[in-house]
Amino acid sequence: MSISEMAFQVKEASIRLAAAGTELKNKALENIARLLMERKDEIIKANNEDLQRSREEKLAEPLLKRLKFDEAKIVDVIDGINSLIKLEDPVGKTLLSTELDEGLELYRVTCPIGVVGIIFESRPDALVQISTLCLKSGNGVLLKGGSEARETNKILAQIITEATEEVGIPPNWIKLLETRADVNEMLKMDKYIDLIIPRGSNEFVRYIMDNSRIPVMGHADGICHCYIDEDADIDMAIRIVVDSKTQYVAVCNATETLLVHKNIAPKVLPELKRALDSKNVELVGCSETQKIIPVAPATEEDWRTEYLDYKLSVKVVGDLEEAIEHINTYGSGHTDSIITNSKEKAAAFMSLVDSGNVFWNCSTRFSDGFRYGFGAEVGISTSKIHARGPVGLDGLLIYKYKLIGNGHIVEDYAKRTKSFKHNKMNKQFPL
Amino acid sequence: MSISEMAFQVKEASIRLAAAGTELKNKALENIARLLMERKDEIIKANNEDLQRSREEKLAEPLLKRLKFDEAKIVDVIDGINSLIKLEDPVGKTLLSTELDEGLELYRVTCPIGVVGIIFESRPDALVQISTLCLKSGNGVLLKGGSEARETNKILAQIITEATEEVGIPPNWIKLLETRADVNEMLKMDKYIDLIIPRGSNEFVRYIMDNSRIPVMGHADGICHCYIDEDADIDMAIRIVVDSKTQYVAVCNATETLLVHKNIAPKVLPELKRALDSKNVELVGCSETQKIIPVAPATEEDWRTEYLDYKLSVKVVGDLEEAIEHINTYGSGHTDSIITNSKEKAAAFMSLVDSGNVFWNCSTRFSDGFRYGFGAEVGISTSKIHARGPVGLDGLLIYKYKLIGNGHIVEDYAKRTKSFKHNKMNKQFPL
Repeated sequence: MSISEMAFQVKEASIRLAAAGTELKNKALENIARLLMERKDEIIKANNEDLQRSREEKLAEPLLKRLKFDEAKIVDVIDGINSLIKLEDPVGKTLLSTELDEGLELYRVTCPIGVVGIIFESRPDALVQISTLCLKSGNGVLLKGGSEARETNKILAQIITEATEEVGIPPNWIKLLETRADVNEMLKMDKYIDLIIPRGSNEFVRYIMDNSRIPVMGHADGICHCYIDEDADIDMAIRIVVDSKTQYVAVCNATETLLVHKNIAPKVLPELKRALDSKNVELVGCSETQKIIPVAPATEEDWRTEYLDYKLSVKVVGDLEEAIEHINTYGSGHTDSIITNSKEKAAAFMSLVDSGNVFWNCSTRFSDGFRYGFGAEVGISTSKIHARGPVGLDGLLIYKYKLIGNGHIVEDYAKRTKSFKHNKMNKQFPL
Repeated sequence: MSISEMAFQVKEASIRLAAAGTELKNKALENIARLLMERKDEIIKANNEDLQRSREEKLAEPLLKRLKFDEAKIVDVIDGINSLIKLEDPVGKTLLSTELDEGLELYRVTCPIGVVGIIFESRPDALVQISTLCLKSGNGVLLKGGSEARETNKILAQIITEATEEVGIPPNWIKLLETRADVNEMLKMDKYIDLIIPRGSNEFVRYIMDNSRIPVMGHADGICHCYIDEDADIDMAIRIVVDSKTQYVAVCNATETLLVHKNIAPKVLPELKRALDSKNVELVGCSETQKIIPVAPATEEDWRTEYLDYKLSVKVVGDLEEAIEHINTYGSGHTDSIITNSKEKAAAFMSLVDSGNVFWNCSTRFSDGFRYGFGAEVGISTSKIHARGPVGLDGLLIYKYKLIGNGHIVEDYAKRTKSFKHNKMNKQFPL
């Protein structure tokens, strides 16, 4: 089947899925959970094939670890599905209701976006999380996972397809793409696909943007900052920076650059260096930093680099303004934290830093859908429109305006024989 | 000054503008209104230059009419500004608040998108509406108007710039582009511009999408439908179709195709033809239509055509399903109306038609920001993400996650010495 036919089928199914009730969608989620457990041996067997092939192909150890999908991981994704079942159905909520005139009522009602194309990396759990989020939010989905996980992804997609068709979800709401060439075909399907969510490097996201008319929600790199203000508590600052940098280095919400106010730098930097040395973090710094602690020089390139490693760049700044300016210039709009005892400075930082997540006195590592209480997430958006930060169910929704009249025509208002009332109601859409 | 420098300046200003208070923004809006009135003679003089040149260049009469910006129009835009002042400030609203753990509080707070690039057509009132909407919503803006209106746009932009700088709005928040080449440069500024809103033809919107990485919110054509169900009231149906087609033909929310249920077609079509004949509407129809009323045949192309004229294509359908299928295949996702006495059929139509505006028993012409009670509008979006339907202030906003802690680190939760509470609060962001 061509990608165009596949996309058309998903589009057709998505229209029906959008109208599916909460009970049906939850029943389908329960059936997915049941079937995943029932067929766990098949899943583990497919995953072992992927692992064996990837080992032969010398895939790096951390990636092999992410690829592994054993019984414990299956239990985890089933737990995730059970939490998702408990979440309120986000579709069909009335966001706004206005009486335009007597008998003419306007409602803004949430609905699914339609068809979402998602390209994700090696972890097979992502397939289950993403597709169940799409199901609960009523969206059709075209998925492309990492080729390392192809056998695992295939069996998972098959189980999800069977489990949902069994209970009466419109068939074809989910399709798995198999090759990179399929992805390139998918990018042309602006007639059928409403949103692309590419999870991967900045470069990859830019490639997608350059090669598609379909809107792209960016799940890109994170160049996150901590800023230690002159009014910071030093112990707290060290604790937060160490956590932000080292709690898990290979993730987008780990801190890559530390900014320090010049008045506190002589006190905080030596202590901080000791703490980071003990975690084997390599430091590079600006010339002011180098006057205080012995570190290699940071280049302009360092401020733009996401290390994803035990490495931190350090810059001494003259004031809060300079810190904000640095973050807005070099950051990626992901997550930035200020450590200060000043409420005013925290307020200014949180207002002026142009990032999706702005923190006061806590670690940048908190920027995550699970920690935010959203349940599963599709990813973290650094886009400026539609959805920002960790994206859960809400980010997969949009709304429709629904207007109910009783023969109302515009000519009556143009001739001014009638006029608009625009009364706010507080009413659910009645149909 | 290069477009890149201009875009950079607007970006810088937008960061400050995002933090501007309600009082300051309203003061600036008042000052714009005052200065527009004070300098109305200059505006009218510039507009006369545009009119004279455009007449010499043989601009069509309806376009000349749209270009004209006289004292009455100035009073209208000032009225619009005064309504905008009365609207609540949409920035800084807390949409969600969650206690993640003791002392660790998450807020989702509305903020401006940042910098918006808007390309609009000949009406100079659009410049004032768009820029004041951007100001109230805290967005920087790059504007490009129709070249017919260049002198009028220039003086209007100058007045808005002066009026806002006078009261202390960050300078450079608004810039006017002058040439088509400037627009092409603007499309490359994905580093500084967060959203492009092109108002114009479908072709034009597609050109923009093909030539920019910047997200595009489509303000495209409207292929709107009325569907007369078998259970319709015939008088109401005729009244609504005549209004939807003829109340103002040159606009995107005018109906272009009529769908009629086969069981009611023999009764409704002859009457409807008489009503539309009296308005000089040309009809084309499918073969079933031609069996009932004498009209020229409609081609496949007709179903895809936005006439923007006194012309209507007519198709007889077997049932509601076929009507919905036709609309989802040939429509542009703009506005579609069902005329029926059946609540169940209305509910199905409003749920399954994949358009931004779905109506029951009223004219498609109601799909408009003013009629919806939104005050001014940037345009009508047929995009599936971010904002749909008439776009007012809300569509120019996004949100930030703001997290307040007291030294909280993720390691405590990873080691399970602490655990998340995720309690819903109902609290405004306190800073």
